[in-house]
Amino acid sequence: MATQARAEPDSLAAHYAAVRALSLALAASLSDADASLQPMPDASPAKWHLAHTTWFFETFVLRDHVPGYRLYDESFAYLFNSYYEGEGERQPRARRGMISRPSLDEIRGWRAAVDEALLGAIGALPADLIVLGLNHEQQHQELMLMDLTAAFFENPLRPAVWPRAPSWPSVVPAPSGWMRGAEGVVEIGHEGGGFGFDCEGPRHRTFLHPHALAERTVTSAEWLGFIADGAYADPLLWLSDGWAWVQDEAIEAPLYWVKEGDGWARFGLDGLQPLDPAEPVSHISYYEAEAFARWAGARLPTEAEWESAAASLDPDGGNQLDRAGPVRPLAGETGLFGNVWEWTGSAYLPYPGFRPAEGAVGEYNGKFMCGQMVLRGGCCATPRGHARASYRNFYYPHQRWMVSGLRLARDL
Amino acid sequence: MATQARAEPDSLAAHYAAVRALSLALAASLSDADASLQPMPDASPAKWHLAHTTWFFETFVLRDHVPGYRLYDESFAYLFNSYYEGEGERQPRARRGMISRPSLDEIRGWRAAVDEALLGAIGALPADLIVLGLNHEQQHQELMLMDLTAAFFENPLRPAVWPRAPSWPSVVPAPSGWMRGAEGVVEIGHEGGGFGFDCEGPRHRTFLHPHALAERTVTSAEWLGFIADGAYADPLLWLSDGWAWVQDEAIEAPLYWVKEGDGWARFGLDGLQPLDPAEPVSHISYYEAEAFARWAGARLPTEAEWESAAASLDPDGGNQLDRAGPVRPLAGETGLFGNVWEWTGSAYLPYPGFRPAEGAVGEYNGKFMCGQMVLRGGCCATPRGHARASYRNFYYPHQRWMVSGLRLARDL
Amino acid sequence: MATQARAEPDSLAAHYAAVRALSLALAASLSDADASLQPMPDASPAKWHLAHTTWFFETFVLRDHVPGYRLYDESFAYLFNSYYEGEGERQPRARRGMISRPSLDEIRGWRAAVDEALLGAIGALPADLIVLGLNHEQQHQELMLMDLTAAFFENPLRPAVWPRAPSWPSVVPAPSGWMRGAEGVVEIGHEGGGFGFDCEGPRHRTFLHPHALAERTVTSAEWLGFIADGAYADPLLWLSDGWAWVQDEAIEAPLYWVKEGDGWARFGLDGLQPLDPAEPVSHISYYEAEAFARWAGARLPTEAEWESAAASLDPDGGNQLDRAGPVRPLAGETGLFGNVWEWTGSAYLPYPGFRPAEGAVGEYNGKFMCGQMVLRGGCCATPRGHARASYRNFYYPHQRWMVSGLRLARDL
Amino acid sequence: MATQARAEPDSLAAHYAAVRALSLALAASLSDADASLQPMPDASPAKWHLAHTTWFFETFVLRDHVPGYRLYDESFAYLFNSYYEGEGERQPRARRGMISRPSLDEIRGWRAAVDEALLGAIGALPADLIVLGLNHEQQHQELMLMDLTAAFFENPLRPAVWPRAPSWPSVVPAPSGWMRGAEGVVEIGHEGGGFGFDCEGPRHRTFLHPHALAERTVTSAEWLGFIADGAYADPLLWLSDGWAWVQDEAIEAPLYWVKEGDGWARFGLDGLQPLDPAEPVSHISYYEAEAFARWAGARLPTEAEWESAAASLDPDGGNQLDRAGPVRPLAGETGLFGNVWEWTGSAYLPYPGFRPAEGAVGEYNGKFMCGQMVLRGGCCATPRGHARASYRNFYYPHQRWMVSGLRLARDL
Repeated sequence: MATQARAEPDSLAAHYAAVRALSLALAASLSDADASLQPMPDASPAKWHLAHTTWFFETFVLRDHVPGYRLYDESFAYLFNSYYEGEGERQPRARRGMISRPSLDEIRGWRAAVDEALLGAIGALPADLIVLGLNHEQQHQELMLMDLTAAFFENPLRPAVWPRAPSWPSVVPAPSGWMRGAEGVVEIGHEGGGFGFDCEGPRHRTFLHPHALAERTVTSAEWLGFIADGAYADPLLWLSDGWAWVQDEAIEAPLYWVKEGDGWARFGLDGLQPLDPAEPVSHISYYEAEAFARWAGARLPTEAEWESAAASLDPDGGNQLDRAGPVRPLAGETGLFGNVWEWTGSAYLPYPGFRPAEGAVGEYNGKFMCGQMVLRGGCCATPRGHARASYRNFYYPHQRWMVSGLRLARDL
Repeated sequence: MATQARAEPDSLAAHYAAVRALSLALAASLSDADASLQPMPDASPAKWHLAHTTWFFETFVLRDHVPGYRLYDESFAYLFNSYYEGEGERQPRARRGMISRPSLDEIRGWRAAVDEALLGAIGALPADLIVLGLNHEQQHQELMLMDLTAAFFENPLRPAVWPRAPSWPSVVPAPSGWMRGAEGVVEIGHEGGGFGFDCEGPRHRTFLHPHALAERTVTSAEWLGFIADGAYADPLLWLSDGWAWVQDEAIEAPLYWVKEGDGWARFGLDGLQPLDPAEPVSHISYYEAEAFARWAGARLPTEAEWESAAASLDPDGGNQLDRAGPVRPLAGETGLFGNVWEWTGSAYLPYPGFRPAEGAVGEYNGKFMCGQMVLRGGCCATPRGHARASYRNFYYPHQRWMVSGLRLARDL
Repeated sequence: MATQARAEPDSLAAHYAAVRALSLALAASLSDADASLQPMPDASPAKWHLAHTTWFFETFVLRDHVPGYRLYDESFAYLFNSYYEGEGERQPRARRGMISRPSLDEIRGWRAAVDEALLGAIGALPADLIVLGLNHEQQHQELMLMDLTAAFFENPLRPAVWPRAPSWPSVVPAPSGWMRGAEGVVEIGHEGGGFGFDCEGPRHRTFLHPHALAERTVTSAEWLGFIADGAYADPLLWLSDGWAWVQDEAIEAPLYWVKEGDGWARFGLDGLQPLDPAEPVSHISYYEAEAFARWAGARLPTEAEWESAAASLDPDGGNQLDRAGPVRPLAGETGLFGNVWEWTGSAYLPYPGFRPAEGAVGEYNGKFMCGQMVLRGGCCATPRGHARASYRNFYYPHQRWMVSGLRLARDL
Repeated sequence: MATQARAEPDSLAAHYAAVRALSLALAASLSDADASLQPMPDASPAKWHLAHTTWFFETFVLRDHVPGYRLYDESFAYLFNSYYEGEGERQPRARRGMISRPSLDEIRGWRAAVDEALLGAIGALPADLIVLGLNHEQQHQELMLMDLTAAFFENPLRPAVWPRAPSWPSVVPAPSGWMRGAEGVVEIGHEGGGFGFDCEGPRHRTFLHPHALAERTVTSAEWLGFIADGAYADPLLWLSDGWAWVQDEAIEAPLYWVKEGDGWARFGLDGLQPLDPAEPVSHISYYEAEAFARWAGARLPTEAEWESAAASLDPDGGNQLDRAGPVRPLAGETGLFGNVWEWTGSAYLPYPGFRPAEGAVGEYNGKFMCGQMVLRGGCCATPRGHARASYRNFYYPHQRWMVSGLRLARDL
């Protein structure tokens, strides 16, 4: 990664303050009990996100680079380390929901102390590590929203974190047109200027075959057609693993869709809302995305096709997160960036010449390069300023608690 | 059950107020997050106990017996019903820890409203149902303490709910003597005067063979001898199911015993404390109790033997719960009541002529009469006034998060 | 146990030869592959039963009592030991179906060699161990038939081991009458004359309350009424564990009942046959038996009630196994012995004063005294001569691949 | 796929006869019980392989293309269909080991009847389907050997299917040299002449970066160094999923390696043999291959790199299967084809422009394109004539019962 943060405001200090403040703002309405919920092993309590991001700064910046720095609390390293094996033992992932103490207020206190120490010494600290830490925190902002949605969905009262907006049926769009993509040898991967995670590079040549991408992502209206056609009951539309998943989990709609009478509602941090057929479908697994594409006579884009199409676009121009207010996928947002993550047909694997970063932070991405698929573009819960054309998100094919949708592609 | 509560203070109202107040006092030091923890499906959050006991009074007393009573919140029935199938759908047991809302304060508000309504109408309400509800609440007071211990044990910080007492090594007692028991036809079961759960009756004759009971329960010092002798690694000492459990769960000591250097500490609501060898062993499973008895050349008492020995003793005279302060098994307490529950060798089955109570409250005990073993006598976490000679507690053979110990018996 | 076998023919040698021959006759029509099937961990391959019973004689009789005896094959002890921890390591129970070698013919060869060695030395060998081995082999004859039924039921071709008999609708009997039982102090348990397993003793006094037993076991016609009444969907009829089992396993009829059009067929070693409503219901779990009794306004007998009623009857007079031909529960057989095992409401626990036999054979019964329920009387697959009034069979409450039915009881 | 079979002998008929005869020869020494063993859900009984390959010819060739053809046995379609959802219901995969009937001899009879019918009409039958069926059968020949090895490994007697060869320590080779690979745009994928599975095409351009491949695969001697260095205990060497697998399964060596005193033996169809350090390591998972490459400072080749290097080589020139005799990986065999399958770092995904074949046979490959990794080159158990430079084998990252090894690659 490079040492210059893109979209840096006046200074690194201001950027640091802004990112850190947004995390707190997102959690502002939570009770201590809300912030301690862990609805599944894949998810973490909000409190844990607030603490773990702080642990990153305290460990890799303050402890390693401020002479004589004393840890705020020795026990927090055990509690709030995540997967950094090089940093020693840690609380088992599936038991993060057992940490009622320290309280949310105590975590806020720790955040304040670390922020004060870091901002006080920022001129003498390695900017690249701080920028890495901020990007890491932005990832956890999105994860915190995802995990809260999953947690609150478990409560039969269906609580809303944000005010419930009035219901709004949008105009369902006409069938999507197609955009012809680049062909032949192209370059993809992070350019080297500005921040990028290690897995985004090195920049390298790859070969694109004639293809087109849809002009917009698939809508809920189109997904209702998929359901109405009996797709969830037709094994021939599914990957073998996908069909096993559909049957084992009794899947019959996207996550958070709830049957209400003859129709559907969908749950989010704005509570249970009528399903808007014009909005992009979201919270679908790779299996569902892939099956939908087959049903539609199309396929998913590769990550190289997607990145090639996105390279010249403004990555900050979409429906993204920049306040602690209601965020949700919006109808009519058709750009490649923001709104919903787009599943690609590419496995998350190292690029040619990939080398992980040195040290414990190098555990960050490379160790997950097996069994996961790439998503591109960011979503409404991705902080504005965090997206890039080269950004590679990745999840297992069955996962769907992120804001995931799809855009079709086809061979020409 | 009968309509007169034993040990009733001045009046039923005062008794009601005292029991309800103790529940709140026990939870007084908990945060909302503490009170929402569910460490395993067998356990429930403290908040849930406070709510479920209130649901009992609101449903079976106020709703059913106060004309025009309006439920405090319609949704609470779903959230806080437990196993009463006759009362409709309910939150899945294993997901009770997902209920961050309503908050602990909101539950306290509900409790206050129900208490006010009930006390205001108490003269017109069926005393037997109220007494049943109070006994039910006392059971949940003990469960709440058990579940909190299990929850806090999951936190690597090992938080103490109550002040940590200074460590006190007691005097390890000499080998236990034996008390000869009654023989021939005896009567056991609830007499009919005062309150009893349906499973305690009917009173009936049974036949006792010549036997003796140990004068005290087994100590931790004796258990250390069992460990030192390699008992956890010797299949010939164990029931077949017990040996499978020892191996599958890698059991090598009672629950909450923690290896510290060459010795042991034990965890409780007073935090992690040095193991006192003189105190009775507790938090052992039936499998462990039964294996210890075999190792010691003895056996467990039957419930009839135990009850026959206990019938003439004061059930309220032991180490029992009567305040929200540190409670723990005490060395030197040798009586049959209080201190630790005593595993018997009797399966929890209906007595001759048993009939469950009518209506939804009749689901209470009879449906659990399969696969569980009886424990007798109460423990340090059982509210004073709740124990009886005829009281039948019951757990599965592998369970050990209750304060369970053992007293040996032998044939004469 | 005593050294005299009851119903011994001319001599112990002749009895030995007859029991051993019946095992081979029962397996005569099996292929090597048939005899290697293990349909579930609870069941064993027929080949394993033939081998394990031989291992018992070779180990505990020949090896221990014939000077200089050399094992037929050293490796067989590992392969065909079952649960005797004292006899060392053994093939994991769930992987017994992986033993394609030695072949069925090789096992037969081993049996012949052991039989020759044992019969050649029988005068010098301990008769009590041989009698124990023969009773053990008779148990395995029944298990072999049970396990084969389970195995063949897995084959969609529904093969019949025995010729398919023509279908025979019997006369459905009138409602059962009641037999008044003994009251007060009675004696039960093995008398001491003739063979008995250690768990059948010691003979001891117990107390019976006024009660009656039904004159016959419950029929399939009556079970159809239980089904038609919606009993499998009514939680209030079931024990808590039983209701969980019904839901988890989607139980809606006895094992081996197969829906055919509007009616039912039932599978057995005589293949798939029309259900005869007059025959006793069989292959039901304890949960089902207990629920049926509750539905019928009755209860299950205790084992003491059952034994007291059976003590004066001829234990060999029922529908029992004495040839390798079709065996099945028969309509109109109403006695306490044979036809179907009868679930009791008694847990399988040690009698007062129980002591396991010494040595490895003492592992036989005592270690299973937890979590299981007692059945009485034997069934059509129990070898004639094996049943006794004091005989205690035992299974877990969910198991039902044995020929298990029920007889109602009620309090007077 | 094309209609011409490569390496066709005199005629399609002769080729058909030869392939079908090899299947029988491989199973010639098996008993009916051996042929019925299913050691795990991933594996199938030998009998099932012999039957399923026959079902393919009977269903897709005879039934669909011979007017008036009558199925040999209607029930076999249910029993021996595998994953063809379009062909209806089938025996659950995990229960294939329950099919003791039909017997191995009956399956042989079915094979003979199908062969006779097919050879009698071969001139009028679609050659491409027959060639597909023969390639399908060759795949199952290899699977049958893999599955038998897994099955016999479960038997503590460690039976050998083939004669045990005398042990032979080979000469351990010097460190491997490197071969520079092609760079820039290359073409890979099936050419179109001769048979290929649908997933091997279409032929297409891709881009290769500067790289080199090792001149030979990794040896067992090198793997012993990996073990000796503590690699199985070092989380930093492993993918995240791989580390979880190592811990959950307690992995500490390749599959079939058995500790013997201070050294290792390895199991195969030739029984338990001393480990030859010079022979290529085999039976390793993708996780292990990937960790080894990281440990060695190298990486796995991509499938395009591998195919580009292999395109000009003779695919039939290696250590491959062409008789029913002992087959095992051989020391000193360094070619890309045969000996051991080589894990690549490529996920098994569709090539650009991929379309599955039409009809039920089109279910063949495309539905598995998720979560699996590509292996290349064939192994000692792959029938000679079956391998191709474009051949794509695929397994899940944790699987290792195939003859899988690795060849290192590195960036230049």
